[in-house]
Amino acid sequence: MKYSFKNDYSEGCHPSILAALMRTNSSQQNGYGLDDYCVEAEKFILQKANAPHSKVHFVSGGTQANLLVISSILRPHESVVSATTGHIFTNEAGAIEATGHKVHGVETIDGKLTPELVQSVIEVHQNKPHQLKQKLVYISNSTEIGTIYKKNELENLSKFCKENGLYLFMDGARLGQALTAESNDLMLEDVAKFTDVFYLGGTKNGALLGEAIVINNPILQEEFGFHIKQKGAMLAKGRILGIQFQELLKEDLYWDLAKHANQQAMKIKQTFKEIGCDLLAETDTNQIFPILENLQIEKLSEQFDFYVWKKIDAQKSAIRIITSWATETEVVERFCQEISKLK
Amino acid sequence: MKYSFKNDYSEGCHPSILAALMRTNSSQQNGYGLDDYCVEAEKFILQKANAPHSKVHFVSGGTQANLLVISSILRPHESVVSATTGHIFTNEAGAIEATGHKVHGVETIDGKLTPELVQSVIEVHQNKPHQLKQKLVYISNSTEIGTIYKKNELENLSKFCKENGLYLFMDGARLGQALTAESNDLMLEDVAKFTDVFYLGGTKNGALLGEAIVINNPILQEEFGFHIKQKGAMLAKGRILGIQFQELLKEDLYWDLAKHANQQAMKIKQTFKEIGCDLLAETDTNQIFPILENLQIEKLSEQFDFYVWKKIDAQKSAIRIITSWATETEVVERFCQEISKLK
Amino acid sequence: MKYSFKNDYSEGCHPSILAALMRTNSSQQNGYGLDDYCVEAEKFILQKANAPHSKVHFVSGGTQANLLVISSILRPHESVVSATTGHIFTNEAGAIEATGHKVHGVETIDGKLTPELVQSVIEVHQNKPHQLKQKLVYISNSTEIGTIYKKNELENLSKFCKENGLYLFMDGARLGQALTAESNDLMLEDVAKFTDVFYLGGTKNGALLGEAIVINNPILQEEFGFHIKQKGAMLAKGRILGIQFQELLKEDLYWDLAKHANQQAMKIKQTFKEIGCDLLAETDTNQIFPILENLQIEKLSEQFDFYVWKKIDAQKSAIRIITSWATETEVVERFCQEISKLK
Amino acid sequence: MKYSFKNDYSEGCHPSILAALMRTNSSQQNGYGLDDYCVEAEKFILQKANAPHSKVHFVSGGTQANLLVISSILRPHESVVSATTGHIFTNEAGAIEATGHKVHGVETIDGKLTPELVQSVIEVHQNKPHQLKQKLVYISNSTEIGTIYKKNELENLSKFCKENGLYLFMDGARLGQALTAESNDLMLEDVAKFTDVFYLGGTKNGALLGEAIVINNPILQEEFGFHIKQKGAMLAKGRILGIQFQELLKEDLYWDLAKHANQQAMKIKQTFKEIGCDLLAETDTNQIFPILENLQIEKLSEQFDFYVWKKIDAQKSAIRIITSWATETEVVERFCQEISKLK
Repeated sequence: MKYSFKNDYSEGCHPSILAALMRTNSSQQNGYGLDDYCVEAEKFILQKANAPHSKVHFVSGGTQANLLVISSILRPHESVVSATTGHIFTNEAGAIEATGHKVHGVETIDGKLTPELVQSVIEVHQNKPHQLKQKLVYISNSTEIGTIYKKNELENLSKFCKENGLYLFMDGARLGQALTAESNDLMLEDVAKFTDVFYLGGTKNGALLGEAIVINNPILQEEFGFHIKQKGAMLAKGRILGIQFQELLKEDLYWDLAKHANQQAMKIKQTFKEIGCDLLAETDTNQIFPILENLQIEKLSEQFDFYVWKKIDAQKSAIRIITSWATETEVVERFCQEISKLK
Repeated sequence: MKYSFKNDYSEGCHPSILAALMRTNSSQQNGYGLDDYCVEAEKFILQKANAPHSKVHFVSGGTQANLLVISSILRPHESVVSATTGHIFTNEAGAIEATGHKVHGVETIDGKLTPELVQSVIEVHQNKPHQLKQKLVYISNSTEIGTIYKKNELENLSKFCKENGLYLFMDGARLGQALTAESNDLMLEDVAKFTDVFYLGGTKNGALLGEAIVINNPILQEEFGFHIKQKGAMLAKGRILGIQFQELLKEDLYWDLAKHANQQAMKIKQTFKEIGCDLLAETDTNQIFPILENLQIEKLSEQFDFYVWKKIDAQKSAIRIITSWATETEVVERFCQEISKLK
Repeated sequence: MKYSFKNDYSEGCHPSILAALMRTNSSQQNGYGLDDYCVEAEKFILQKANAPHSKVHFVSGGTQANLLVISSILRPHESVVSATTGHIFTNEAGAIEATGHKVHGVETIDGKLTPELVQSVIEVHQNKPHQLKQKLVYISNSTEIGTIYKKNELENLSKFCKENGLYLFMDGARLGQALTAESNDLMLEDVAKFTDVFYLGGTKNGALLGEAIVINNPILQEEFGFHIKQKGAMLAKGRILGIQFQELLKEDLYWDLAKHANQQAMKIKQTFKEIGCDLLAETDTNQIFPILENLQIEKLSEQFDFYVWKKIDAQKSAIRIITSWATETEVVERFCQEISKLK
Repeated sequence: MKYSFKNDYSEGCHPSILAALMRTNSSQQNGYGLDDYCVEAEKFILQKANAPHSKVHFVSGGTQANLLVISSILRPHESVVSATTGHIFTNEAGAIEATGHKVHGVETIDGKLTPELVQSVIEVHQNKPHQLKQKLVYISNSTEIGTIYKKNELENLSKFCKENGLYLFMDGARLGQALTAESNDLMLEDVAKFTDVFYLGGTKNGALLGEAIVINNPILQEEFGFHIKQKGAMLAKGRILGIQFQELLKEDLYWDLAKHANQQAMKIKQTFKEIGCDLLAETDTNQIFPILENLQIEKLSEQFDFYVWKKIDAQKSAIRIITSWATETEVVERFCQEISKLK
């Protein structure tokens, strides 16, 4: 079987997590996220985020986190602004619209929203009440195309949102990878400070499943549990989410796994550059998008699995390579050797 | 700490499941339920159900399964009929209504619906189109108060539904316990034959999480995947659901665990009866509802944890005792000794 | 053709309204309820209600008013309490549930809610967040079975709601008839004072269409226009609602028409009583429910049209007689003569 | 007061309609659209459309018609494609999304959809079930910018939809104006043949209120009444819609009124052209978008009211002039004189 670089959720979970599940298995605990492990995991997260007044809720996946947060925040006549590359815009089967809310899509160069881009949406929706009231800005970090927000970018966007009565929500399905990227200058503390809500992704960073939603804005904290239950997102054995995040965050495992994924991607990116490949976007997280000739793609896919992402012209396409906490160094070396041969 | 009889999801999972998670951990698999384990688990379930044309989907919990199935079936003007004790009626934070549909609640004696009870709902909604069109009947087996459907009861209800253009959906969060109860005469095959959709609960029968939705009616099978995604119920690592159900159903583990839970409950029930306790309902699954005097409740709760379920009068209340696959025989013996002392 | 006592919307509108439509027809006005007539009509209503800080919105019908008000008030996890006879419970094709909210139905003797009845719903929904949060109480005056709220009843219910963080909403599709009933002691001012929102029905009291929603609670006034637009309830020519309510309320036409309807019903009721008929409920508004023998019903329906409302036993049923602003005195006399012959 | 060219719903209704309301006022009729007038009006419409098997439903406005039709057709995972200028995309306060469905917006040159444009949406949503299933194409005729569909354009789009399992829905808020435009070659019969559903707008063509939804596809006809009731769109006195459409369509009043509106607009357009004005779009219905210098706009607005539609540059903007059935010839002459002075 070919080795897969198709995504960062191909394997199970980090062995420490399985060990923790075993260790705790026979302990009797309260259900629905009221167990000791969830309590502990929340404490670890809030310490790292220096956000003692924030609240943490664990849910099983990213689409679930997105729809929960967004539908709990918005009133019926309020809408959310997203990049057109944003996961909620076209990759969640209409999950947000199914809760009654429009997602305004904005074209971006690099998957990132700016105050100017958000402003451009507001400006063309001034005919109230015939047009919706924008109330929430959704961003992803790292973005769906692997780019990251710099501290001043996030700070400016946050300032703009506050001045315009907008909430700011960060989808952090790959927040570990963003915050450990080489060019990153954001700290978790900044994320907690500049957003109203964000989440720390577990599924794509070593957990079996799970995202940790962190609600910073006290207004948005109220009665969130009802929404979790109503949307079918409340696990009876919430403990399995708590145990995993406790294990990932009690020390630095979460960040180490993300860094590992990034480093493997950077080795591969470097090798593509050495053979003269262009990239669809300049990224330094765990997703890279090299542009190859069709023959090169064919050759490379003999031994490795990956997605052909976007047709560039008759001769060329961009492919997507994703690494993860589980990507083995030995395999990356073998892959780089194959890339070098494409020259 | 007191031993808890509060519910059947206090512990982790059966050790075989943890072993299976370990064994499979490093295998690279497709995401979103397209992994080898889900495929295998589906095969096992359909074999046991003798339902080769049914389709299986794994999701993480019961409320999620309920809202997914119901909202995928009903058109906007269609409604669902449930016992007032049914989980969807008042215990899922309005999950069904949040998808746009009314749940008609029917008072029952024993938590079970009959053709007559469903007919009574239809009869008072004849003023179309001012009144809703009933299209789905929701039942639970075992019910929320521990009772079970006999084969002829299910067959009659199924017949009635077919004759009246209604779909029949069985919530099987505790289907294992139902089908292994002493008085049970239903087989899994019957359930598949008499319902349009049902699910096999994992969370309350030895899994970390997971329910296996089985769609028997081909009309309802179409495009179900969209709904799973849209409601945030599609796990990226769907494998963890597949692995668990594979382990539970490849042989008889699923049924053995349920039987164990029932037997422990029956021992406890017998002991309560021996000291002359009445029961709120006569059940032979893993939930029992003995009626005790307040002083007896106080005494019993010194060492054991359980819910006081329903006030009967100033002196007496019914308590709820739930056992599970994890309930230890030794503890049950100790509990029975304490019960005996209450006399 | 038989004369119909089937409902209070069988005819067009009061001639004064047609005259007003003619008089204003060629005036150019702003759309969407921003015309001069809506502004004037609002002023008249708020004066009569002695509620200068309330806001008025005109919409075309009762179900529309109900779904707009309720869905604009409730957050996703909040629910509304209604009598099971309440129009929203089973007579609006699931309109409220379609906006995502559960309606808790409470059995009542006379169609009216009391603090005790609302409390009984709250009490059985204490398991948060698994059970919904009740946030709104819906009542109708006059009720769907013709009864009315006395001042102290409304005051007590209002007080209970305030103490329990509940909003109180009065469906006033037949508010005119309620406030002009013989036994009534409520004034419009009281209604404005004791409810958070109510509406004055036009459709059933002389208008072609239209209900005037009056929002008393300032918190609920904000951004209501968005909801009207979103639910398709904002008429481009909002003027036709304004013109009608201006005409009805600039002097006492609204109340005179309602009183006329009540008086005609009372004459009929008196005649039924004189021949010894029982009534399903004791009402003094424009709906009466005499219980007749099947033969009597047959006889009476030779010349007049009405609904057979409820089977009492093999020999008897209750019928429903509704009068309106348009019911002619001469016809009522003829009808009473026929009733007298039934003895 | 200035004469307004701001929209086509500034006045009341055509005098014949008022006369008909008077004539029919005291007749007792069934409620909810089951009156004689609705029955007659349906007959007239289906005769003109040569569509004996279609069904007609009358509702009060365009947004209501749009949300009713779309939400009745789509299942939860299905979406609708619209031009970004389409009324449903940003001018209905999220009405479609509020029923749970995404509207895909497509940029167009002239407000019209083509098979190629619809295909472009489908192509980027191939990752099922993570991406929505497009099921409905929404078009307006005339469009929101005054353009119209030619017969072959509609035929091609219809063919494409059929081949791709898509339904085609035409918003006909200004269908009268479209079908009576000089360049038009479509007949009502063609509209009925090439669409699954369309509506004939009354509000913008001489009625007080009302749109006539015509459902041609038998599959979409079933149980539509439930949706009307559930969305609060069913008028108790449905007669007032029937009476109006009966009056408009029993002979050619509907078409005459539309033609009048178009002709007035064409005179104005001609005058703008004569003074050398460019137009934002070339239209021959009742909406025109001349581009004027700011000073010209200022001058013209001294005596006439209209919207400044779109800023072109620092010196120039497009304005929107709308005429209607009620626009007086004498006023248009006066307006044209003023335009001529702008040269």
